[in-house]
Amino acid sequence: MLASSGPARAGDIDTDRVIANLRALNRFGEREGGMWRTALSEADMACRAWLAGEFEALGLSVTLDGVGNLVGRDPRAARAVLLGSHSDSVPNGGWLDGALGVVYALETARTLRDAGRELGIDVVSFGDEEGAFLGCLGSASFAGRLTDVDLDAAKSRDDVRFRDAQAAAGLAGRARLSLDPGRTVAYLEAHIEQGPRLEATGVDIGIVEGIVGLRRQVVRFAGRADHAGTTPMAMRRDAAQAMFAFAAAVLAELPALASPRSVWNIGIVRVGPGAGNIVPSSAEIMIEYRDTDEAVLDRMGAAILDLVARSNGEGGVGVTAEAAGLLRPALMDRRLMRTIAEAAATVGASSVEMPSGAGHDAQNLAADVPTAMLFVPSIDGRSHDPAENTSDADIRRGARVYCETVRRILAAGGIA
Amino acid sequence: MLASSGPARAGDIDTDRVIANLRALNRFGEREGGMWRTALSEADMACRAWLAGEFEALGLSVTLDGVGNLVGRDPRAARAVLLGSHSDSVPNGGWLDGALGVVYALETARTLRDAGRELGIDVVSFGDEEGAFLGCLGSASFAGRLTDVDLDAAKSRDDVRFRDAQAAAGLAGRARLSLDPGRTVAYLEAHIEQGPRLEATGVDIGIVEGIVGLRRQVVRFAGRADHAGTTPMAMRRDAAQAMFAFAAAVLAELPALASPRSVWNIGIVRVGPGAGNIVPSSAEIMIEYRDTDEAVLDRMGAAILDLVARSNGEGGVGVTAEAAGLLRPALMDRRLMRTIAEAAATVGASSVEMPSGAGHDAQNLAADVPTAMLFVPSIDGRSHDPAENTSDADIRRGARVYCETVRRILAAGGIA
Repeated sequence: MLASSGPARAGDIDTDRVIANLRALNRFGEREGGMWRTALSEADMACRAWLAGEFEALGLSVTLDGVGNLVGRDPRAARAVLLGSHSDSVPNGGWLDGALGVVYALETARTLRDAGRELGIDVVSFGDEEGAFLGCLGSASFAGRLTDVDLDAAKSRDDVRFRDAQAAAGLAGRARLSLDPGRTVAYLEAHIEQGPRLEATGVDIGIVEGIVGLRRQVVRFAGRADHAGTTPMAMRRDAAQAMFAFAAAVLAELPALASPRSVWNIGIVRVGPGAGNIVPSSAEIMIEYRDTDEAVLDRMGAAILDLVARSNGEGGVGVTAEAAGLLRPALMDRRLMRTIAEAAATVGASSVEMPSGAGHDAQNLAADVPTAMLFVPSIDGRSHDPAENTSDADIRRGARVYCETVRRILAAGGIA
Repeated sequence: MLASSGPARAGDIDTDRVIANLRALNRFGEREGGMWRTALSEADMACRAWLAGEFEALGLSVTLDGVGNLVGRDPRAARAVLLGSHSDSVPNGGWLDGALGVVYALETARTLRDAGRELGIDVVSFGDEEGAFLGCLGSASFAGRLTDVDLDAAKSRDDVRFRDAQAAAGLAGRARLSLDPGRTVAYLEAHIEQGPRLEATGVDIGIVEGIVGLRRQVVRFAGRADHAGTTPMAMRRDAAQAMFAFAAAVLAELPALASPRSVWNIGIVRVGPGAGNIVPSSAEIMIEYRDTDEAVLDRMGAAILDLVARSNGEGGVGVTAEAAGLLRPALMDRRLMRTIAEAAATVGASSVEMPSGAGHDAQNLAADVPTAMLFVPSIDGRSHDPAENTSDADIRRGARVYCETVRRILAAGGIA
């Protein structure tokens, strides 16, 4: 028997079934290889209806809540491990982001449904992880971090109100499910890496040590529009010139303040009015920076604000900063991380601890229940794109590590 | 009698009439204080029809040519001074840009129509100076610098073909007029400064010594789009980071290479794909630089290209430059400049020599006939905007200097 196909022994996860169910799930919203399962769309809801049938076939008690969270609970258990991820996609997304973790959860629940002596297995597909309305909306709601007022205000980029989409999806008036830490002993999520590290280093499994926190500062430069031919250089208040100097200085300063895990990006740059013969009157950049350590984020943020203060008024250009978003870092449970490492070794997979640079539903649960994530390699680091992929062997290997991890938790009767 | 109103003595230019005609001309295309006389628009053509009537009333022989140039020739003279500017405007432009020079020409022709012994006065309003289709299109055509092929290809920013607009304006098939150096002994153009120098120094009249040449380089940065959370800093190819470093370096290097007259601007900045969480894959800046001296422009251009070569490949980002436009510097005639200075002194106006940082129709004529320009102050340096203005006193004083300059040329029978 080939190591890369079918169950290796009785009671092992059926990796053929993993692949088949990934394909089945991705019938919903597929167009020319890209996935269009944005939250609360027809395809997203049809996919959840299909998943609900799969959960029910395993004897789970299934609820679709008011924000689209689909939860299957083991009715025989008072305490359970929660397994899952999300089944929505970005517009024109790939076939594994979210779907992989949901299918691993489903097939692990099938494989191990009678393995737990005291613990059951609950499964979940969270709603709107990709933030069609709000980032990680479903898990934020599940973790009690969203009010009804937040939901009343939520809108998509196309200006569709969450409440209208919720009603159109038939979810208006439904209760929102909440995490019950008395029941849920742990949350385990598998995901594609969405980055190039595992592939670049040839490691099979990433054991997430923390999901980075993220902060955003919009820095604005206010100058004056003048004719670029007739206004002497000394009389200008050039917003773009101030921006170039500021951005070059920020990018020069951050490396010394950062940790080896830190990343930062200036991804949005705007200059107005935007004509070759007009001195720019306005400029704007958005600086985004991430780390698993709040102290590092504080240090980077202070350096940015200090540079704003020093730059303000230079060359007649006003410089201001506005905080434009924040996600707190979330540390994963070290006991669960150790369990994943042991499971990987058992299966014969190499593993490495690494931060997650992207946000995940696990971030919302980590403060309330022991939480862990495992990554499988992403080919070329691609995601959020039809080209997103993971080799068949890596998908199967990841499923075995994931299932073995859950088997160990069940065998121990909880978190050891 | 107040110095600021009415003729100071018999034969002086009637500055009340200058003001009245500026107002009359600006009935065409005025909307809420902004002027909308873009080339070949209904308002532009109606304005030219009105001007044609004014020229004819002075006994001039009037022609509207195929590109909208309106020329009135003194039928009694074999040689003439050519006076004028343009009567089109930018969209939502001001009331003086172009119009001032046309009205000074009209009223000077009226005042001095019988003053020339050998020389007559011709007047012109050039078509499309503001470049709705091509910058200084009318005077470029008049000076023989535009082919029919150029005109066939010309389009507006809204993608309207010049040929379609020409036909709609009723000009299709009309001949294009050409400058005749055997007839035209000099070209004199008055204009608002469009900059802040005269106002800042309290000088009445700017005597243009040269119209700056202009060059444009588009510099492009080609990197790779990556997830800004999951891609380690060392694995990125960040086009925006390369752009910030390049722009900061260019802006630091140019002052040492420039002349006191040089100006430069980075007015267009674009970064793609333009999301906070995606490492920029592309960036583009346009550098525009101007000077009256080609050698200075050469030096600045060489420094930019040298920096492109040194930057190319740094951080995995490709850097390329493309020349994106060029106007040659045009020097004004020193004898005419001296005549303007003497005329200003006669009228009791202060004057200063200065470069013109903006392009003008005079630029196209300077190579073929002695050419000069005089500037009146712009309040706050504003132009191309409904706020564009010049004080009543400055408008009247400029008219007197302009008329006195022409009187001196006529009295001398040409260029002394």
